[in-house]
Amino acid sequence: MMKGSTEIDMPESSSVSKGKAPLIAAPMNENGGYKKGIAIFDLILRLAAIVTALAAAASMGTSDETLPFFTQSFQFQASYDDLPTFQFFVIAMAIVGGYLVLSLPFSIVAIVRPHAAGPRLLLIILDTVALSLNTAAGAAAAAIVYLAHNGNSSTNWLAICLQYGDFCRKNSGAVVASFITVVIFVFLLVLSAFALRRH
Amino acid sequence: MMKGSTEIDMPESSSVSKGKAPLIAAPMNENGGYKKGIAIFDLILRLAAIVTALAAAASMGTSDETLPFFTQSFQFQASYDDLPTFQFFVIAMAIVGGYLVLSLPFSIVAIVRPHAAGPRLLLIILDTVALSLNTAAGAAAAAIVYLAHNGNSSTNWLAICLQYGDFCRKNSGAVVASFITVVIFVFLLVLSAFALRRH
Repeated sequence: MMKGSTEIDMPESSSVSKGKAPLIAAPMNENGGYKKGIAIFDLILRLAAIVTALAAAASMGTSDETLPFFTQSFQFQASYDDLPTFQFFVIAMAIVGGYLVLSLPFSIVAIVRPHAAGPRLLLIILDTVALSLNTAAGAAAAAIVYLAHNGNSSTNWLAICLQYGDFCRKNSGAVVASFITVVIFVFLLVLSAFALRRH
Repeated sequence: MMKGSTEIDMPESSSVSKGKAPLIAAPMNENGGYKKGIAIFDLILRLAAIVTALAAAASMGTSDETLPFFTQSFQFQASYDDLPTFQFFVIAMAIVGGYLVLSLPFSIVAIVRPHAAGPRLLLIILDTVALSLNTAAGAAAAAIVYLAHNGNSSTNWLAICLQYGDFCRKNSGAVVASFITVVIFVFLLVLSAFALRRH
């Protein structure tokens, strides 16, 4: 039942589980390596999500374009803060990126103590909230980017991407990066659920 | 340690946990009532989410308005299928509602067998996906509804809610209903995480 010495030397998480150790020690050690593997994969996914979330925020936040022609009174310029949805996108993705950085210590605790349910439960709850925020930002920005590309004839909203090509390209890239972060979050949640599962 | 006769008579989930029963029977029975309570609350929340999800889809799907004046060649009419984002909203919310109906049997299984991890794990994974779809639909529609209400002077997109008031009111209601569903989903996921937790 005990496969290797590394799995036997595992430190116990708290005094509560120490008290129960004689009862459930055998089934816990059985899948120690499996849970540790999940925790390490969790940390790697989190690092990838930090990169994509901050790339999305930075790409959207630096998107502005000034057209090379102007009239005496007006200069044609597009910036992300002309559209409230894009402002929300930058703020939300920055929050998600900041949360992911702050969640790294908890993920490391889950590697060191694969059987501690507390940090993992906290991560599941906060990940769910961050996933919602991230999806909301990405989907709202995608709806506006679609409008900017295609316009809408029924409501007389014209496409602006014919004039502001670079602006639209940067925005589209930011939306794609945010949806990659969403996919990583879904994986993170599924992994955490598997790690919490009792055997 | 065993509080009542109802908790002792609980049926075991599978042959695997039957094999381990002598080892971990005591800690399992300890929190049987607590897990059963979570499972019943899960079913009630699911029923509420079905109502709000289908109300959102129906409210958006029936939103159209014909203005009482027209020219010889053109009649002023707004419908949800003029905007691709609203079409996506109706489809996504209908899918979420359908998923919630199909998830009811698994929720009932979780009430009958509070210690079976399989159905609960399946529900967590599918709930995460449904939460993402639901949030995406709600946020994208919210971005368009905001534009319809306020317009945007930088991109020359005019507000259409001054003309199509009833249309906008129905859409706004649908967006609110979809965000209520999102909140219920977040609660469902947190509850499932607590139920999966090992004591």
